[in-house]
Amino acid sequence: MQALNKQLDFIIELDRLKGVYRQALVKSDKNRFENSAEHSWHITLTAHILHEYAVENVNISRVMSMLLIHDIVEIDAGDMFAFADTKALAEQADNELAAATRLFGLLPEAQFQTYKALWLEFENAETIDARFAKAMDSVLPLLQNMSNEGGSWVRHKVKKSQVIKRNRFLEGLAPQLWLYVRQQIDFAVTQGWLLDD
Amino acid sequence: MQALNKQLDFIIELDRLKGVYRQALVKSDKNRFENSAEHSWHITLTAHILHEYAVENVNISRVMSMLLIHDIVEIDAGDMFAFADTKALAEQADNELAAATRLFGLLPEAQFQTYKALWLEFENAETIDARFAKAMDSVLPLLQNMSNEGGSWVRHKVKKSQVIKRNRFLEGLAPQLWLYVRQQIDFAVTQGWLLDD
Repeated sequence: MQALNKQLDFIIELDRLKGVYRQALVKSDKNRFENSAEHSWHITLTAHILHEYAVENVNISRVMSMLLIHDIVEIDAGDMFAFADTKALAEQADNELAAATRLFGLLPEAQFQTYKALWLEFENAETIDARFAKAMDSVLPLLQNMSNEGGSWVRHKVKKSQVIKRNRFLEGLAPQLWLYVRQQIDFAVTQGWLLDD
Repeated sequence: MQALNKQLDFIIELDRLKGVYRQALVKSDKNRFENSAEHSWHITLTAHILHEYAVENVNISRVMSMLLIHDIVEIDAGDMFAFADTKALAEQADNELAAATRLFGLLPEAQFQTYKALWLEFENAETIDARFAKAMDSVLPLLQNMSNEGGSWVRHKVKKSQVIKRNRFLEGLAPQLWLYVRQQIDFAVTQGWLLDD
């Protein structure tokens, strides 16, 4: 039962992701902050719904697995706003790597290796599956901000160029989504939700 | 773009699941109530971690898809405690069917059919994939209650026989998990977290 006990301990540890709060707001629940657990659900399902738009075949099972675990490191490292400064983001990357080792290390060896490799693949964003997963992680906050009068963009005075840069790799990956995103960004500028730079 | 717009509207509608609260408590976040969106993430990942314990091969990609959508109907129908009375559960089933039609109906026709069929498969619990998904939906609340001095069992005076009945189909499906669950149930009785009947 030793392997099972490790797995169950890990599953209970996962509960802590429900207490990690992000910059996004949940419009439908009194505009409270969103936590990383419910975000992980939303984005995994978003990937499932939209994966037909990828021009190359994505392995949706791998993409789902990646997105289910992509934020687990925040249990130790906390959430960092996507548009934070470069130095803060670099420090966060170090903290997240240590967190991945500790957290996935709760699991039996083979699963530790599998999940850590999957998490690194997501972080490195070089494979099609990882790039599609990353794209979803940029598109969903955009959809949420667009449905909430600019949401976290407004509070953090985010610039149009930052959002374009963050979503740019959609261009080759899923052109129809990229077209939509570009239109939304321009509309957000006309509404004053993004700064025009 | 019409199909895409429908899909994006559905994705935004999904946000409302973050405001549907369950009977489980989130120990790591001040013992607040858990919502169905974060529960859906936790259970989907739990299935991924534990699917090796199924004695027959489960298609984990289908199981994950099923668990990601299994509670979406609660956006319209609300959450019902697993140990509610039979009449309340029957009414809930009718409400959930109507909710599935409305909510998945926001999607383009092909996806509507796919997701509704997947949701019905989960509800009917006749295939191996659906039975394994259902088993996870019983096991995870047990783990949460066991790590939280009985949690919702104590507040609702749940009986040992009810929890055994709800988890029983693990017996043939994943005997090692069933053995663990039986031991936990007996331990919960000794602690006064479940009523011995």
